[in-house]
Amino acid sequence: MLYPEGVLIDGMTGAVTPETGRYSKRLSGLAGIFQDSSAFERAIFDEADPLVYEVIDYRKPDSDLFFGTTTMQPGKVGVEYYMTRGHFHERRDRGEAYYTQSGVGLLLLESRAGETRSVAMCPGVCAFIPPDWAHRSINTGREKLVFAWFCATDAGHDYGQILQRGMRKLVVEQNGEVAITDNPNFRT
Amino acid sequence: MLYPEGVLIDGMTGAVTPETGRYSKRLSGLAGIFQDSSAFERAIFDEADPLVYEVIDYRKPDSDLFFGTTTMQPGKVGVEYYMTRGHFHERRDRGEAYYTQSGVGLLLLESRAGETRSVAMCPGVCAFIPPDWAHRSINTGREKLVFAWFCATDAGHDYGQILQRGMRKLVVEQNGEVAITDNPNFRT
Repeated sequence: MLYPEGVLIDGMTGAVTPETGRYSKRLSGLAGIFQDSSAFERAIFDEADPLVYEVIDYRKPDSDLFFGTTTMQPGKVGVEYYMTRGHFHERRDRGEAYYTQSGVGLLLLESRAGETRSVAMCPGVCAFIPPDWAHRSINTGREKLVFAWFCATDAGHDYGQILQRGMRKLVVEQNGEVAITDNPNFRT
Repeated sequence: MLYPEGVLIDGMTGAVTPETGRYSKRLSGLAGIFQDSSAFERAIFDEADPLVYEVIDYRKPDSDLFFGTTTMQPGKVGVEYYMTRGHFHERRDRGEAYYTQSGVGLLLLESRAGETRSVAMCPGVCAFIPPDWAHRSINTGREKLVFAWFCATDAGHDYGQILQRGMRKLVVEQNGEVAITDNPNFRT
């Protein structure tokens, strides 16, 4: 039997209380997603394998809906900003909502057919992610980027496709500004 | 084809931009849910049928998930605070999340089997509503109560049962404090 509960979401730290699980990604766990592999190796060494992001959830398997937070540190690897691995949902009929609580970033999306979109992430903006759009979050700011997400419990994560092929667009710093560019190494 | 979009949720006003629909409930639209029917009639007359709450949604029928806001005015009818109609979802396997943005209130819940619970609503608290628990929001404060909600698009609303029977608990002001009491008129 499931019971209602008040779950505190701290929009500054990403803490979820009570939480049911969490994982974190240090830079070494993100091999292959950044373009500049020597900058990647150097950053792991020079910055002692820095934390890139942390995901905390409140998940009750018998509920259709679950939620949680993702907290992304600021940082770059070469000209690319810290990003999440990016994923499709295993279930193609499952979307998601990303409600930014603090910090600024970009949500990069790609439909199954290869259309690309981005949504600016800033406090108060709830990004609507339709079913079957791959999505990757990028912290383009100098502070933590914290967003609360809401998703069907059975959506599932398919990380493999984005890991193998990359995404069609990159988010980079160009002349001190955030720019979206084509990914020269994207493989169809 | 559905496309991603950034949807601004204003946690102070409840505005959703862009929005796909809205409705509002004035007091006259809430006949039968307050215990004190003469206080109810008087409030409609004296306060010119005041606004009690407004619901604004961002709903894409082809998406599995939708979201929006509910903005509740502060007020009372007799000793009872302003409340929503309260509902079960038509689909018994669909829960919901209520993420309070501003103001304070109580979320009153009742399982299909008749168990009762409440969750305090205040900024930062995301109330987990399990599938098949009826839920009603009550503004117990002096300011607007604004919460963002996230729900399966196909959940559906069953208002009839709560309208007919009421809920087992009431939320009232007692000696200047918020109190949860038994509903003497609850009908099983």
